Amino acid sequence: VGREAISNASSNRRTRPLSGTERTRHSRLREQGRTDRSELEAVLRAGLIAHLGVPTATGPMVVPTVYGFEPHQVYIHGSVASQSLAERPGADCCLTVTVLDGLVLARSVFEHAVNYRSAMIYAVPRVVTDPAEKLAGLRLISEHLAPGQWDYARQPNRKELAATRLLVLRTDEASVKVRSGPPDDADGPDAALGLWAGELPLSAFWQQPVADPALSASVTLPPHIRAMAGKAAYSG
Amino acid sequence: VGREAISNASSNRRTRPLSGTERTRHSRLREQGRTDRSELEAVLRAGLIAHLGVPTATGPMVVPTVYGFEPHQVYIHGSVASQSLAERPGADCCLTVTVLDGLVLARSVFEHAVNYRSAMIYAVPRVVTDPAEKLAGLRLISEHLAPGQWDYARQPNRKELAATRLLVLRTDEASVKVRSGPPDDADGPDAALGLWAGELPLSAFWQQPVADPALSASVTLPPHIRAMAGKAAYSG
Repeated sequence: VGREAISNASSNRRTRPLSGTERTRHSRLREQGRTDRSELEAVLRAGLIAHLGVPTATGPMVVPTVYGFEPHQVYIHGSVASQSLAERPGADCCLTVTVLDGLVLARSVFEHAVNYRSAMIYAVPRVVTDPAEKLAGLRLISEHLAPGQWDYARQPNRKELAATRLLVLRTDEASVKVRSGPPDDADGPDAALGLWAGELPLSAFWQQPVADPALSASVTLPPHIRAMAGKAAYSG
Repeated sequence: VGREAISNASSNRRTRPLSGTERTRHSRLREQGRTDRSELEAVLRAGLIAHLGVPTATGPMVVPTVYGFEPHQVYIHGSVASQSLAERPGADCCLTVTVLDGLVLARSVFEHAVNYRSAMIYAVPRVVTDPAEKLAGLRLISEHLAPGQWDYARQPNRKELAATRLLVLRTDEASVKVRSGPPDDADGPDAALGLWAGELPLSAFWQQPVADPALSASVTLPPHIRAMAGKAAYSG
């Protein structure tokens, strides 16, 4: 499904391709697979939270987390996952970022789908201990979510930095899948049913900021937050 | 963080409480934990996609999937996960549904957070093979995403039903976390910094439906899809 809607990203290859290991080979939904590194960064740019899968003694745990990234690495808040990882140093994990773009309403239930952008990153998380790297990683997370906020707010002191658990994952082994466009059953026999078919797009927007009730009325909203209000989130 | 913003859900207990096993005991962020079953259903009602963590020979894989639910079970499309599960029958998995509600902008970077609703379900997925249960499960998924669409579209025939992989997970062991409200540093020394602090809410809306370009102009949009346009998604 989704074949005709997927543009060939290889003509736009700017950086080295993603790896093609056993688990990223797109054995299923091959036509939704992207192999270009810029496509991975596009998904990371668009997303706001990630889901980290970490192994535990009783099976995987999937933890939602904020993240930030740079060309070959993703930084995440590692508080919840840290304990499991401490018990399993060197354990492989999977970090998935998914943006839901809408529903694909086909003539048949069977051909229904969702339009989405998704990246799965396989890596062994490394606990960041160096204070300078920690600061840089936290800055990436903060700026990914609210650009300008890092320089506006009070930055972490030494004690706070020590209390923060940060993980970093290399993005060398990753798999990107994208589906967009109309349903796939326009050419089949179901087209004769005369049913409506198409897409129901989903968009998220930052709303008007709500001041902390404890805030003095004399404190004005900074321009970088004001600028976010009304803007589309998940757009990249 | 988030303590004062979390209402006590236990006064509203309608059904039996969620289990309190080792992995759902909220060893961290205790004050964000919910123990009421109705809170779990509220998160499942609000969310649109889930992330399933399945064990593989090389660590967990985290797969995004649509879902539907009834009081004690969640149904998911199991296509991608099926292979791993076939190799590991009886393997524990974790299904996480997360709704991001906004950014919590504090005076200090350290106190920054996100407002969110999240449910983590721990269960051994069962592959649904009975055609009647499969049909019922698929209907739950379809109706969760687009109410009314199941009866409008052509329903699965025997061949399509056989080709569909469906998994079901019991929701007996689950953990729900919610954060809402303003930042937590209004009472601390940072309040004297005179910085703006508050929430930047995030809301998603279904957009205007886009007809399949192949669709005849004489086919009209059905009322149940027209009714979704402009409505908030993730509201429950």
